[in-house]
Amino acid sequence: MEFAEYFPVWPRLTPAEQKKLSESAVSRTAKKGQILHNGSAECTGLLLVQSGQLRAYILSDEGREITVYRLFDLDLCLFSASCMLRSLRFELTIEAEKDTEFWLIPAEVYKRLMEQSAPLANYTNEIMAERFSEVMWLMEQILWQSLDKRLAAFLLEEMALEETGALKITHERIANHLGTAREVVTRMLRYFQSEGLVKLSRGQIEITDKAGMQTLDMV
Amino acid sequence: MEFAEYFPVWPRLTPAEQKKLSESAVSRTAKKGQILHNGSAECTGLLLVQSGQLRAYILSDEGREITVYRLFDLDLCLFSASCMLRSLRFELTIEAEKDTEFWLIPAEVYKRLMEQSAPLANYTNEIMAERFSEVMWLMEQILWQSLDKRLAAFLLEEMALEETGALKITHERIANHLGTAREVVTRMLRYFQSEGLVKLSRGQIEITDKAGMQTLDMV
Repeated sequence: MEFAEYFPVWPRLTPAEQKKLSESAVSRTAKKGQILHNGSAECTGLLLVQSGQLRAYILSDEGREITVYRLFDLDLCLFSASCMLRSLRFELTIEAEKDTEFWLIPAEVYKRLMEQSAPLANYTNEIMAERFSEVMWLMEQILWQSLDKRLAAFLLEEMALEETGALKITHERIANHLGTAREVVTRMLRYFQSEGLVKLSRGQIEITDKAGMQTLDMV
Repeated sequence: MEFAEYFPVWPRLTPAEQKKLSESAVSRTAKKGQILHNGSAECTGLLLVQSGQLRAYILSDEGREITVYRLFDLDLCLFSASCMLRSLRFELTIEAEKDTEFWLIPAEVYKRLMEQSAPLANYTNEIMAERFSEVMWLMEQILWQSLDKRLAAFLLEEMALEETGALKITHERIANHLGTAREVVTRMLRYFQSEGLVKLSRGQIEITDKAGMQTLDMV
Protein backbone atom coordinates (compact mmCIF):
# COMPACT_ATOMS: atom_id res chain seq x y z
CA MET A 1 0.00 0.00 0.00
CA GLU A 2 1.26 3.46 -0.91
CA PHE A 3 1.66 6.30 1.60
CA ALA A 4 -1.23 8.19 -0.06
CA GLU A 5 -3.68 5.39 0.73
CA TYR A 6 -3.09 5.83 4.47
CA PHE A 7 -4.32 9.41 4.26
CA PRO A 8 -8.10 9.72 3.89
CA VAL A 9 -7.70 13.43 3.19
CA TRP A 10 -5.18 12.87 0.37
CA PRO A 11 -7.45 13.67 -2.62
CA ARG A 12 -8.24 17.04 -1.06
CA LEU A 13 -4.62 18.15 -0.90
CA THR A 14 -2.99 20.02 -3.81
CA PRO A 15 -0.37 18.15 -5.88
CA ALA A 16 2.34 20.33 -4.29
CA GLU A 17 1.10 19.46 -0.79
CA GLN A 18 0.92 15.77 -1.66
CA LYS A 19 4.49 15.88 -2.95
CA LYS A 20 5.77 17.67 0.14
CA LEU A 21 4.04 15.24 2.50
CA SER A 22 5.00 12.00 0.76
CA GLU A 23 8.61 13.10 0.23
CA SER A 24 9.03 13.94 3.89
CA ALA A 25 7.51 10.71 5.27
CA VAL A 26 9.96 7.96 6.15
CA SER A 27 8.95 4.33 6.60
CA ARG A 28 10.17 2.85 9.88
CA THR A 29 9.80 -0.29 11.95
CA ALA A 30 9.76 -0.85 15.70
CA LYS A 31 10.10 -4.04 17.71
CA LYS A 32 7.51 -4.99 20.30
CA GLY A 33 8.37 -3.18 23.53
CA GLN A 34 10.29 -0.36 21.87
CA ILE A 35 9.59 3.20 23.04
CA LEU A 36 8.87 5.39 20.00
CA HIS A 37 8.23 8.62 21.78
CA ASN A 38 9.17 9.69 25.24
CA GLY A 39 6.91 12.18 26.99
CA SER A 40 9.64 14.68 27.69
CA ALA A 41 11.38 14.44 24.30
CA GLU A 42 10.28 17.43 22.28
CA CYS A 43 9.10 16.36 18.89
CA THR A 44 9.39 12.89 17.41
CA GLY A 45 7.01 13.64 14.54
CA LEU A 46 3.64 12.22 13.55
CA LEU A 47 3.32 8.44 13.48
CA LEU A 48 1.05 6.86 10.89
CA VAL A 49 0.61 3.15 11.62
CA GLN A 50 0.96 0.80 8.62
CA SER A 51 0.60 -2.38 10.65
CA GLY A 52 1.06 -3.33 14.27
CA GLN A 53 -0.10 -1.78 17.51
CA LEU A 54 1.01 1.23 19.54
CA ARG A 55 0.12 2.19 23.08
CA ALA A 56 -0.01 5.77 24.37
CA TYR A 57 0.30 6.14 28.13
CA ILE A 58 1.01 8.67 30.83
CA LEU A 59 3.48 8.17 33.62
CA SER A 60 3.31 9.50 37.18
CA ASP A 61 6.29 10.89 39.08
CA GLU A 62 6.29 7.63 41.04
CA GLY A 63 6.49 5.57 37.84
CA ARG A 64 2.86 4.48 37.70
CA GLU A 65 1.32 4.17 34.25
CA ILE A 66 -2.09 4.24 32.61
CA THR A 67 -2.92 3.49 28.99
CA VAL A 68 -4.68 6.46 27.42
CA TYR A 69 -5.38 4.94 24.01
CA ARG A 70 -4.08 2.44 21.51
CA LEU A 71 -3.34 2.92 17.83
CA PHE A 72 -3.92 0.36 15.11
CA ASP A 73 -3.49 0.14 11.34
CA LEU A 74 -4.14 3.48 9.58
CA ASP A 75 -4.25 5.44 12.85
CA LEU A 76 -2.35 8.71 13.04
CA CYS A 77 -0.63 9.77 16.25
CA LEU A 78 -0.56 13.55 16.72
CA PHE A 79 0.77 13.74 20.24
CA SER A 80 4.24 12.48 19.38
CA ALA A 81 4.45 15.82 17.52
CA SER A 82 3.29 18.07 20.32
CA CYS A 83 5.51 20.96 19.18
CA MET A 84 3.03 21.23 16.30
CA LEU A 85 0.36 22.68 18.57
CA ARG A 86 1.37 25.46 20.90
CA SER A 87 -1.43 24.69 23.36
CA LEU A 88 -0.61 21.01 23.94
CA ARG A 89 0.86 20.78 27.39
CA PHE A 90 0.87 17.12 28.33
CA GLU A 91 3.34 14.32 27.90
CA LEU A 92 2.50 10.95 26.45
CA THR A 93 4.82 8.02 25.99
CA ILE A 94 4.31 5.88 22.88
CA GLU A 95 5.36 2.25 22.94
CA ALA A 96 5.12 -0.49 20.30
CA GLU A 97 2.84 -3.20 21.73
CA LYS A 98 3.49 -5.43 18.74
CA ASP A 99 6.12 -5.30 16.00
CA THR A 100 4.99 -2.22 14.11
CA GLU A 101 5.57 -0.61 10.73
CA PHE A 102 4.81 3.07 10.50
CA TRP A 103 5.42 6.25 8.56
CA LEU A 104 7.20 9.01 10.44
CA ILE A 105 6.17 12.50 9.29
CA PRO A 106 8.31 15.44 10.46
CA ALA A 107 6.25 17.77 12.67
CA GLU A 108 7.58 20.89 10.98
CA VAL A 109 6.48 19.75 7.51
CA TYR A 110 3.03 18.72 8.72
CA LYS A 111 2.61 21.94 10.65
CA ARG A 112 3.48 24.13 7.66
CA LEU A 113 1.08 22.21 5.43
CA MET A 114 -1.69 22.37 8.01
CA GLU A 115 -1.30 26.13 8.28
CA GLN A 116 -2.06 26.52 4.56
CA SER A 117 -4.50 23.69 4.00
CA ALA A 118 -8.01 23.87 5.45
CA PRO A 119 -8.71 20.20 4.56
CA LEU A 120 -5.59 19.02 6.41
CA ALA A 121 -6.32 21.26 9.41
CA ASN A 122 -9.90 19.97 9.59
CA TYR A 123 -8.72 16.38 9.28
CA THR A 124 -6.29 16.97 12.17
CA ASN A 125 -9.15 18.47 14.14
CA GLU A 126 -11.21 15.31 13.66
CA ILE A 127 -8.35 13.11 14.82
CA MET A 128 -7.88 15.22 17.92
CA ALA A 129 -11.64 15.07 18.61
CA GLU A 130 -11.45 11.28 18.29
CA ARG A 131 -8.63 11.01 20.85
CA PHE A 132 -10.36 13.55 23.09
CA SER A 133 -13.46 11.35 23.07
CA GLU A 134 -11.39 8.31 24.03
CA VAL A 135 -9.81 10.20 26.92
CA MET A 136 -13.19 11.43 28.17
CA TRP A 137 -14.49 7.87 28.03
CA LEU A 138 -11.47 6.73 30.04
CA MET A 139 -12.03 9.47 32.60
CA GLU A 140 -15.62 8.37 33.09
CA GLN A 141 -14.41 4.79 33.56
CA ILE A 142 -11.84 5.83 36.15
CA LEU A 143 -14.33 7.99 38.03
CA TRP A 144 -17.45 5.91 37.87
CA GLN A 145 -16.64 2.31 37.06
CA SER A 146 -15.45 -0.22 39.60
CA LEU A 147 -12.18 -1.97 38.88
CA ASP A 148 -13.76 -5.40 38.35
CA LYS A 149 -15.69 -4.04 35.35
CA ARG A 150 -12.65 -2.23 33.95
CA LEU A 151 -10.54 -5.38 34.34
CA ALA A 152 -13.20 -7.52 32.65
CA ALA A 153 -13.42 -5.05 29.75
CA PHE A 154 -9.63 -5.00 29.43
CA LEU A 155 -9.33 -8.81 29.36
CA LEU A 156 -12.07 -9.04 26.72
CA GLU A 157 -10.30 -6.40 24.61
CA GLU A 158 -7.02 -8.28 24.90
CA MET A 159 -8.71 -11.55 23.90
CA ALA A 160 -10.01 -9.84 20.75
CA LEU A 161 -6.67 -8.16 19.93
CA GLU A 162 -4.54 -11.25 20.57
CA GLU A 163 -7.15 -13.63 19.12
CA THR A 164 -6.71 -16.07 21.98
CA GLY A 165 -8.44 -16.96 25.24
CA ALA A 166 -5.11 -17.68 26.92
CA LEU A 167 -3.40 -14.33 27.49
CA LYS A 168 0.33 -14.15 28.10
CA ILE A 169 0.43 -11.01 30.20
CA THR A 170 1.75 -10.18 33.65
CA HIS A 171 -0.33 -8.66 36.44
CA GLU A 172 2.12 -5.76 36.50
CA ARG A 173 1.44 -5.07 32.82
CA ILE A 174 -2.34 -5.09 33.38
CA ALA A 175 -1.91 -2.71 36.30
CA ASN A 176 0.04 -0.36 34.00
CA HIS A 177 -2.80 -0.40 31.50
CA LEU A 178 -5.45 0.33 34.12
CA GLY A 179 -3.52 2.87 36.19
CA THR A 180 -3.60 0.80 39.36
CA ALA A 181 -1.20 -1.26 41.50
CA ARG A 182 -0.12 -4.83 40.73
CA GLU A 183 -1.46 -6.16 44.06
CA VAL A 184 -4.91 -4.80 43.25
CA VAL A 185 -4.94 -6.62 39.90
CA THR A 186 -3.71 -9.86 41.49
CA ARG A 187 -6.41 -9.71 44.15
CA MET A 188 -9.14 -9.06 41.56
CA LEU A 189 -7.90 -11.83 39.26
CA ARG A 190 -7.99 -14.29 42.18
CA TYR A 191 -11.56 -13.22 42.82
CA PHE A 192 -12.34 -13.79 39.10
CA GLN A 193 -10.76 -17.24 39.43
CA SER A 194 -12.88 -18.09 42.47
CA GLU A 195 -15.93 -17.10 40.40
CA GLY A 196 -14.81 -19.44 37.61
CA LEU A 197 -14.25 -16.62 35.11
CA VAL A 198 -10.52 -17.20 34.58
CA LYS A 199 -7.85 -19.78 35.26
CA LEU A 200 -4.51 -18.39 36.43
CA SER A 201 -1.16 -20.03 35.86
CA ARG A 202 2.41 -18.75 35.67
CA GLY A 203 2.54 -15.86 33.16
CA GLN A 204 -0.87 -16.72 31.74
CA ILE A 205 -4.53 -15.83 32.25
CA GLU A 206 -7.02 -18.12 30.58
CA ILE A 207 -10.52 -16.78 30.15
CA THR A 208 -12.75 -19.76 30.99
CA ASP A 209 -16.13 -18.00 31.05
CA LYS A 210 -16.27 -15.33 28.36
CA ALA A 211 -20.05 -14.87 28.70
CA GLY A 212 -19.73 -14.35 32.46
CA MET A 213 -17.00 -11.81 31.84
CA GLN A 214 -19.16 -9.98 29.31
CA THR A 215 -22.03 -9.82 31.79
CA LEU A 216 -19.67 -8.23 34.31
CA ASP A 217 -18.50 -5.73 31.70
CA MET A 218 -22.07 -4.83 30.79
CA VAL A 219 -23.67 -4.28 34.20
CA MET B 1 -15.90 45.78 22.87
CA GLU B 2 -16.84 44.61 19.38
CA PHE B 3 -17.36 40.97 18.44
CA ALA B 4 -14.21 41.08 16.26
CA GLU B 5 -12.03 41.90 19.23
CA TYR B 6 -12.98 38.62 20.93
CA PHE B 7 -11.54 36.66 18.02
CA PRO B 8 -7.72 36.58 17.97
CA VAL B 9 -7.84 35.05 14.49
CA TRP B 10 -10.08 37.82 13.11
CA PRO B 11 -7.44 39.68 11.01
CA ARG B 12 -6.64 36.42 9.20
CA LEU B 13 -10.21 35.88 7.99
CA THR B 14 -11.38 37.28 4.66
CA PRO B 15 -13.87 40.20 4.73
CA ALA B 16 -16.61 37.80 3.56
CA GLU B 17 -15.81 35.36 6.38
CA GLN B 18 -15.74 38.18 8.92
CA LYS B 19 -19.13 39.38 7.72
CA LYS B 20 -20.67 35.92 7.87
CA LEU B 21 -19.32 35.26 11.37
CA SER B 22 -20.25 38.58 12.93
CA GLU B 23 -23.72 38.60 11.35
CA SER B 24 -24.49 35.14 12.68
CA ALA B 25 -23.31 35.76 16.25
CA VAL B 26 -25.98 36.76 18.74
CA SER B 27 -25.24 38.43 22.08
CA ARG B 28 -26.91 36.64 25.01
CA THR B 29 -26.94 36.72 28.77
CA ALA B 30 -27.34 33.96 31.35
CA LYS B 31 -28.08 34.17 35.05
CA LYS B 32 -25.84 32.44 37.57
CA GLY B 33 -26.92 28.80 37.82
CA GLN B 34 -28.51 28.65 34.37
CA ILE B 35 -27.73 25.61 32.20
CA LEU B 36 -26.57 26.82 28.77
CA HIS B 37 -25.96 23.47 27.20
CA ASN B 38 -27.21 20.07 28.18
CA GLY B 39 -25.00 17.07 27.37
CA SER B 40 -27.65 15.23 25.42
CA ALA B 41 -29.01 18.24 23.51
CA GLU B 42 -27.54 18.14 20.04
CA CYS B 43 -26.07 21.45 19.14
CA THR B 44 -26.39 24.66 21.12
CA GLY B 45 -23.68 26.46 19.14
CA LEU B 46 -20.31 27.89 20.11
CA LEU B 47 -20.19 30.08 23.19
CA LEU B 48 -17.74 32.99 23.27
CA VAL B 49 -17.59 34.49 26.76
CA GLN B 50 -17.74 38.29 26.96
CA SER B 51 -17.78 38.44 30.74
CA GLY B 52 -18.68 36.06 33.52
CA GLN B 53 -17.79 32.43 34.19
CA LEU B 54 -18.95 29.12 32.74
CA ARG B 55 -18.40 25.61 34.05
CA ALA B 56 -18.21 22.50 31.88
CA TYR B 57 -18.89 19.23 33.66
CA ILE B 58 -19.76 15.61 33.05
CA LEU B 59 -22.53 13.75 34.77
CA SER B 60 -22.66 10.07 35.72
CA ASP B 61 -25.75 7.88 35.32
CA GLU B 62 -26.15 8.15 39.10
CA GLY B 63 -26.13 11.95 38.95
CA ARG B 64 -22.57 12.49 40.15
CA GLU B 65 -20.69 15.42 38.62
CA ILE B 66 -17.13 16.52 38.01
CA THR B 67 -15.95 19.86 36.67
CA VAL B 68 -13.87 19.34 33.54
CA TYR B 69 -12.90 22.95 32.93
CA ARG B 70 -14.05 26.52 33.41
CA LEU B 71 -14.36 29.30 30.87
CA PHE B 72 -13.62 32.95 31.50
CA ASP B 73 -13.64 36.21 29.50
CA LEU B 74 -12.62 35.70 25.85
CA ASP B 75 -12.77 31.89 26.10
CA LEU B 76 -14.51 29.98 23.33
CA CYS B 77 -16.50 26.84 24.09
CA LEU B 78 -16.41 24.29 21.26
CA PHE B 79 -18.10 21.37 22.95
CA SER B 80 -21.51 23.00 23.10
CA ALA B 81 -21.34 22.63 19.30
CA SER B 82 -20.35 18.99 19.16
CA CYS B 83 -22.27 18.41 15.91
CA MET B 84 -19.48 20.46 14.35
CA LEU B 85 -17.01 17.61 14.73
CA ARG B 86 -18.11 14.16 13.66
CA SER B 87 -15.64 12.43 15.98
CA LEU B 88 -16.72 14.11 19.23
CA ARG B 89 -18.56 11.50 21.22
CA PHE B 90 -18.87 12.81 24.75
CA GLU B 91 -21.43 14.91 26.52
CA LEU B 92 -20.64 17.98 28.55
CA THR B 93 -23.06 20.16 30.43
CA ILE B 94 -22.33 23.90 30.48
CA GLU B 95 -23.58 26.01 33.37
CA ALA B 96 -23.20 29.71 34.15
CA GLU B 97 -21.27 29.96 37.42
CA LYS B 98 -21.70 33.71 37.47
CA ASP B 99 -24.00 36.05 35.55
CA THR B 100 -22.51 35.75 32.09
CA GLU B 101 -22.63 37.67 28.82
CA PHE B 102 -21.65 35.70 25.75
CA TRP B 103 -21.85 35.50 21.99
CA LEU B 104 -23.67 32.49 20.59
CA ILE B 105 -22.33 31.37 17.21
CA PRO B 106 -24.40 28.86 15.22
CA ALA B 107 -22.48 25.60 14.79
CA GLU B 108 -23.44 25.28 11.12
CA VAL B 109 -22.04 28.71 10.23
CA TYR B 110 -18.81 28.12 12.12
CA LYS B 111 -18.42 24.65 10.62
CA ARG B 112 -18.83 25.90 7.05
CA LEU B 113 -16.31 28.71 7.63
CA MET B 114 -13.85 26.33 9.25
CA GLU B 115 -14.03 23.99 6.28
CA GLN B 116 -12.86 26.78 3.95
CA SER B 117 -10.55 28.71 6.22
CA ALA B 118 -7.21 27.21 7.27
CA PRO B 119 -6.63 30.01 9.83
CA LEU B 120 -9.99 29.34 11.50
CA ALA B 121 -9.47 25.55 11.45
CA ASN B 122 -6.01 25.94 12.99
CA TYR B 123 -7.35 28.32 15.61
CA THR B 124 -10.03 25.75 16.49
CA ASN B 125 -7.32 23.12 16.70
CA GLU B 126 -5.40 25.20 19.22
CA ILE B 127 -8.50 25.66 21.37
CA MET B 128 -9.17 21.94 21.35
CA ALA B 129 -5.53 21.24 22.25
CA GLU B 130 -5.90 23.69 25.14
CA ARG B 131 -8.98 21.89 26.51
CA PHE B 132 -7.37 18.52 25.88
CA SER B 133 -4.42 19.61 28.01
CA GLU B 134 -6.75 20.68 30.80
CA VAL B 135 -8.52 17.31 30.72
CA MET B 136 -5.23 15.40 30.79
CA TRP B 137 -4.12 17.50 33.75
CA LEU B 138 -7.40 16.68 35.50
CA MET B 139 -6.97 12.97 34.77
CA GLU B 140 -3.52 12.99 36.33
CA GLN B 141 -4.97 14.73 39.38
CA ILE B 142 -7.73 12.15 39.72
CA LEU B 143 -5.34 9.24 39.31
CA TRP B 144 -2.34 10.39 41.24
CA GLN B 145 -3.25 13.17 43.63
CA SER B 146 -4.82 12.61 47.01
CA LEU B 147 -8.09 14.38 47.70
CA ASP B 148 -6.65 16.69 50.36
CA LYS B 149 -4.35 18.25 47.75
CA ARG B 150 -7.13 18.54 45.18
CA LEU B 151 -9.43 20.14 47.74
CA ALA B 152 -6.72 22.60 48.81
CA ALA B 153 -6.07 23.53 45.17
CA PHE B 154 -9.79 23.99 44.54
CA LEU B 155 -10.29 26.25 47.59
CA LEU B 156 -7.30 28.38 46.58
CA GLU B 157 -8.68 28.68 43.03
CA GLU B 158 -12.09 29.71 44.41
CA MET B 159 -10.46 32.31 46.67
CA ALA B 160 -8.76 33.83 43.64
CA LEU B 161 -11.90 33.74 41.46
CA GLU B 162 -14.23 35.11 44.13
CA GLU B 163 -11.63 37.52 45.51
CA THR B 164 -12.49 36.61 49.07
CA GLY B 165 -11.16 34.34 51.80
CA ALA B 166 -14.70 33.57 53.01
CA LEU B 167 -16.26 31.29 50.43
CA LYS B 168 -20.02 30.90 50.21
CA ILE B 169 -20.18 27.37 48.82
CA THR B 170 -21.81 24.15 49.96
CA HIS B 171 -19.95 20.89 50.52
CA GLU B 172 -22.24 19.31 47.91
CA ARG B 173 -21.13 21.87 45.36
CA ILE B 174 -17.45 21.22 46.07
CA ALA B 175 -18.06 17.48 45.74
CA ASN B 176 -19.61 18.14 42.31
CA HIS B 177 -16.53 20.04 41.24
CA LEU B 178 -14.15 17.34 42.40
CA GLY B 179 -16.14 14.30 41.31
CA THR B 180 -16.53 12.88 44.79
CA ALA B 181 -19.24 12.46 47.45
CA ARG B 182 -20.42 15.20 49.81
CA GLU B 183 -19.52 13.17 52.91
CA VAL B 184 -15.93 12.84 51.73
CA VAL B 185 -15.64 16.62 51.30
CA THR B 186 -17.20 17.25 54.72
CA ARG B 187 -14.78 14.84 56.39
CA MET B 188 -11.78 16.43 54.69
CA LEU B 189 -12.91 19.98 55.52
CA ARG B 190 -13.26 18.98 59.19
CA TYR B 191 -9.73 17.65 59.06
CA PHE B 192 -8.59 20.97 57.50
CA GLN B 193 -10.36 22.79 60.34
CA SER B 194 -8.63 20.66 62.97
CA GLU B 195 -5.31 21.62 61.32
CA GLY B 196 -6.24 25.32 61.52
CA LEU B 197 -6.41 25.77 57.75
CA VAL B 198 -10.09 26.73 57.53
CA LYS B 199 -12.95 27.80 59.74
CA LEU B 200 -16.32 26.23 58.93
CA SER B 201 -19.67 27.85 59.59
CA ARG B 202 -23.13 27.46 58.06
CA GLY B 203 -22.84 27.85 54.25
CA GLN B 204 -19.35 29.32 54.50
CA ILE B 205 -15.73 28.19 54.46
CA GLU B 206 -13.21 30.73 55.64
CA ILE B 207 -9.59 30.11 54.69
CA THR B 208 -7.62 31.01 57.82
CA ASP B 209 -4.19 29.77 56.77
CA LYS B 210 -3.62 30.42 53.08
CA ALA B 211 0.11 29.66 53.29
CA GLY B 212 -0.56 26.31 54.94
CA MET B 213 -3.09 25.51 52.23
CA GLN B 214 -0.57 26.42 49.53
CA THR B 215 2.01 24.13 51.11
CA LEU B 216 -0.49 21.29 50.99
CA ASP B 217 -1.28 22.06 47.35
CA MET B 218 2.43 22.11 46.47
CA VAL B 219 3.69 18.92 48.12
